[in-house]
Amino acid sequence: MRAADLGERGLLALLAPLGYPKGAPLPPGDDAGGVWFDKGALLLKTDGFLYREVALRGMGPFEVGWRAVAAVASDLVAKMGRPLGFTLGLFLPPESGVEEALDLVRGAAAAAQAHGAPLLGGDTNRGTEVALTASGYALARRPLPRAGLPGDLVYLAGDRWGKTGAAIDAHYRGLEVPPDFREAAFYPRARRELLGLAGLVRGSADSSDGLAETLWQLSEALGLGVGLEGLPLFPEVLAYAGSEEKALSLVLYGGEEFEAVLVVPEEKAPRLERKAVRLGLPLFRAGRLQAGVGVRFRGKEVERRGYAHF
Amino acid sequence: MRAADLGERGLLALLAPLGYPKGAPLPPGDDAGGVWFDKGALLLKTDGFLYREVALRGMGPFEVGWRAVAAVASDLVAKMGRPLGFTLGLFLPPESGVEEALDLVRGAAAAAQAHGAPLLGGDTNRGTEVALTASGYALARRPLPRAGLPGDLVYLAGDRWGKTGAAIDAHYRGLEVPPDFREAAFYPRARRELLGLAGLVRGSADSSDGLAETLWQLSEALGLGVGLEGLPLFPEVLAYAGSEEKALSLVLYGGEEFEAVLVVPEEKAPRLERKAVRLGLPLFRAGRLQAGVGVRFRGKEVERRGYAHF
Repeated sequence: MRAADLGERGLLALLAPLGYPKGAPLPPGDDAGGVWFDKGALLLKTDGFLYREVALRGMGPFEVGWRAVAAVASDLVAKMGRPLGFTLGLFLPPESGVEEALDLVRGAAAAAQAHGAPLLGGDTNRGTEVALTASGYALARRPLPRAGLPGDLVYLAGDRWGKTGAAIDAHYRGLEVPPDFREAAFYPRARRELLGLAGLVRGSADSSDGLAETLWQLSEALGLGVGLEGLPLFPEVLAYAGSEEKALSLVLYGGEEFEAVLVVPEEKAPRLERKAVRLGLPLFRAGRLQAGVGVRFRGKEVERRGYAHF
Repeated sequence: MRAADLGERGLLALLAPLGYPKGAPLPPGDDAGGVWFDKGALLLKTDGFLYREVALRGMGPFEVGWRAVAAVASDLVAKMGRPLGFTLGLFLPPESGVEEALDLVRGAAAAAQAHGAPLLGGDTNRGTEVALTASGYALARRPLPRAGLPGDLVYLAGDRWGKTGAAIDAHYRGLEVPPDFREAAFYPRARRELLGLAGLVRGSADSSDGLAETLWQLSEALGLGVGLEGLPLFPEVLAYAGSEEKALSLVLYGGEEFEAVLVVPEEKAPRLERKAVRLGLPLFRAGRLQAGVGVRFRGKEVERRGYAHF
C-alpha cells in the first residue's frame, strides 16, 4: 500500500505508537510526546512541512521560519508545556540564496523569542526543495491530554478562528492576503496565557488543520460527540466572507490557526472565564461533549474535511 | 550568494548564532544546543539528511531510521547528555510504500531503545524525496563543550574508526558492504559509557563527518593545533584497505562514525584509561593539543576534507 492511499492521518496513526513508551505523560498520537521528569513532564515535539505548501502571498522566508516554530509552540502550549527551546532543520536546494536561509532562521529565532524560549541551532542539508522541520521541548507540570466527559464544555481559545482561513482563501483565489488577516496568518503566536488555566481544564487539543478536523479527532479520541452551539465569527471574517455561511466555513475548514480547543468541566467554567479575562486570553464557549461520536453544529453533522499532506 | 557557494559548514556557521542565547550551557555551533535547568543542562539536537545520501548497499528503511536517531544520540552523548527521548520527522513521496514508512520508524524506535530512551512520535509530510530529520533531548549534569588547553591529550572513543569509512568506500565502488563493517555502518550506537567519564574529560566533539574534519573543527574552535601521533587501525580495516596508507585514509576521511573525540588533561589520563576499561569503552590515545591551528599526523599536515551537504 502507498502512503497516499492511507492518507497522512492514517499513516500517522500507524506510526505514532511505534516505540512510544507505556505510561508516558501523554498518549501516542497526542499533540506532543514526552517523558516524566521530577517536576512534571518534559515534552518533545517535531513538525515538518514544505515551504511551498505554507507560503501565502506576502509571506517570505522570515514568515515561513516563524511559522515553523509557532506550529511547534502551539502544540507544546496546548499540552500546558512552557517552551524551553526550539531547533530548526532545513533542507535547501544548492541554488538557494544564503539570504533566504538567514531569513528562515531569523524568523524562527524571532518566533522562539516571542514564545519566551531560545532557538538552539539546528541543521542544514541539501534537498530538492525547501523543507523545514522544527522541534521544541517544554516543561509541563501537569500535561494535558485530549480528555473529556459527557457534559463538559468546549471552548475555543484565541482569536485567529476564521482569519487564517480567510488568508488562505484569498491566497488560493490569487489575491493578496487582506491586511486584516496578515498578523494572524503571517505571525501566529501560541498563547502562553493557556498555562495560567492549569487546573481548570480537563483536556485540550491543538488546532492547526482546521477546527472541524481537530474536533473530529477529539471526538474519536474520546469516543464522545462534540455538539457545537456557536462559533466565533469575527466582523472582519464576516465582511470578507460576505455571508455567515461562508464565514462559518472559514472557521471550520480554515487551517493554520494554531489555536487550542479546551474541554472544561461545567463547574469550573465560571472560574475559567474569569481567569481568561484576567489573562487577556480570548475564549469562546462553543458547545459541549455529548454521547456518540461525531461533530454537530446546531444539530447538523459537520463534514470532516481538513488539510492533509497525502 | 548561493548556499552552495558558502558550503554547508559556512552556512551553518552563519546560522548557528541566530537567536542562540548568551550564557547557554554550550556555545552556538557546538554538537548540541541547550538551556540550563535545575539539575544541569537540558540539551536539544536536530539532525536531518536525505535517504539517498546515507543508504549504503544493504541498508533498508529500518537501518536508515536507526541511523537518524543514532546520529542525534551521538551528538547528545558526546556532550555528556543522557538521552531522554527522540522524535522523527519524515518527508515521503506520495508513492512511498506504507511498509517503508513503518520500517523507517521501526528502525528509529529500535535505535532509541538501544540508547535507553523512547521514540516520542514525530511527523510525516509529503516530499519530493525521502528525507529524515531526527531530534532528541538529553539531560547533562555537566555538559561538555569543545574545550582544551595546550598539552591536553586527545583520545578517540569507540571502535568504528575506519570501519564506516571502509563500508562507504565499498558502497561507492559498487560492492556489497563487507560483513566485517556492517554492524558499525548499519547499526551505529552512541556510547553511553562516555557518561561514566564525567569529571575526567575537559572537552569533546562528536565525529560524524570524518575524523579529519572533526579535528579541524576542534582546532579552529579552540585556536589550538591537534598533533596526532597514532591512529586506530583495526585489522579488518587494514585487510580491506590493503595498505596502511589507505587504511589511515579510511580512518581520517571515512565519515558516519558517530564516535567521540575526547580532550583530557594529562594528569587525569591514568584514571580515565582505567575507568574506560572498567566501562568496556574502547579508547585510543591519538595525540595532544599544541600551539597553532591545524591538524598534523606525525608532523605532516592532515588535509581538511570531509563530508559536506553543499
